[in-house]
Amino acid sequence: MADKTTIIVFSGDLDKAMASFIIANGAAAMGSEVTMFFTFWGLNILRKENVKVRKKHWMEKLFGAMMPKGPEKLGLSKMNMGGLGGKMMKWAMRRKNVSTLAQLIEMAREQGVKLVACTMSMDVLGIQPEELIDGIDFGGVAAYLGEAYDAKLNLFI
Amino acid sequence: MADKTTIIVFSGDLDKAMASFIIANGAAAMGSEVTMFFTFWGLNILRKENVKVRKKHWMEKLFGAMMPKGPEKLGLSKMNMGGLGGKMMKWAMRRKNVSTLAQLIEMAREQGVKLVACTMSMDVLGIQPEELIDGIDFGGVAAYLGEAYDAKLNLFI
Amino acid sequence: MADKTTIIVFSGDLDKAMASFIIANGAAAMGSEVTMFFTFWGLNILRKENVKVRKKHWMEKLFGAMMPKGPEKLGLSKMNMGGLGGKMMKWAMRRKNVSTLAQLIEMAREQGVKLVACTMSMDVLGIQPEELIDGIDFGGVAAYLGEAYDAKLNLFI
Repeated sequence: MADKTTIIVFSGDLDKAMASFIIANGAAAMGSEVTMFFTFWGLNILRKENVKVRKKHWMEKLFGAMMPKGPEKLGLSKMNMGGLGGKMMKWAMRRKNVSTLAQLIEMAREQGVKLVACTMSMDVLGIQPEELIDGIDFGGVAAYLGEAYDAKLNLFI
Repeated sequence: MADKTTIIVFSGDLDKAMASFIIANGAAAMGSEVTMFFTFWGLNILRKENVKVRKKHWMEKLFGAMMPKGPEKLGLSKMNMGGLGGKMMKWAMRRKNVSTLAQLIEMAREQGVKLVACTMSMDVLGIQPEELIDGIDFGGVAAYLGEAYDAKLNLFI
Repeated sequence: MADKTTIIVFSGDLDKAMASFIIANGAAAMGSEVTMFFTFWGLNILRKENVKVRKKHWMEKLFGAMMPKGPEKLGLSKMNMGGLGGKMMKWAMRRKNVSTLAQLIEMAREQGVKLVACTMSMDVLGIQPEELIDGIDFGGVAAYLGEAYDAKLNLFI
């Protein structure tokens, strides 16, 4: 199968991020060329845990500090209960030998899934390229649409 | 029209579940072959109200008890206000003769809409097949993708 | 490019509304015929700020008063913090010269993006046509599906 797939990852919730990568990995395993566009809160999935960036407005620093950094820090979209729900979900996943989000991301990269960070969202949220994991691409809405019109399956998550 | 339709029902909110089934029923009425994949919180829409299942880890029982069981118990994604918003929405729907979610589900089944429960989510959330309504199918991401690449309309709700 | 695009705007959150219009405007700029269907909370994006409507049930008035009226009143889907998050987002957008939601809506109209309000949601939420901005269309699920099966890119936001 040579059908292309695109997924806009708008959400930065653990459960929705998991769903995004499970679909992306499944599609890649079936031979589809997959592109994931990370926008708004979805950018948090790609954030490194410890990066110091100079020259940031204090408001951007504050906003950045309030948002989760990377797959280990994300909460659930429902029943998060101050992080407890997320812990229960991770416990259940370990017990059932389901891959963690970090492993799913790694798997996606090994399978050649293209990860694209939305430059406009980065600008608004004050996130700089060096704050995101290495080896990703950067693009805007035109790049997304170019891929989407060429794809068979397009999802917004 | 012979175009296929797939809907991933990730959300277990009353309003999003309603939207999913309204689209599914509309599509089926237009002659489309429709498949709905229920994953994560979306599984709650398919749960029976009273089922005792043995051999469950206490943590799964706790998680299961905290999640709504079936269409009557779902809340709104916004303005739920501890269930009050959901009651107001149901009041408005009755007043305007809009079908309830339970009726929409029944209608979908009568029209031959295929309801598929995501086996991996069931595993993680500790939900067993007998806890879900009868006559549904079970499948994973590969089953979903097989249908989606063959469909004209694919939504993630 | 002559590919059609449809977007169901279910969400009435500022961030998701922004994403919807950024995609719609980008698609229209690339020559796509774009239709946006506003349903449930998404209708709030199209509401005028000051309209008095007679003959409304008090419950509908109450529901209407609790929901935001128009682009200036929407909150964020995450980190809204009683409106503070929304204010921070708007501050960041101004600073980076990103268009406001009101400007994005205006741009969409200038580019001929078709805005359709879902009549069934209007009925349930008790919203009357004169409460929504002028020059939009009205339609139900059949109208949506007619467009979606004809389109190349269909998103649910």
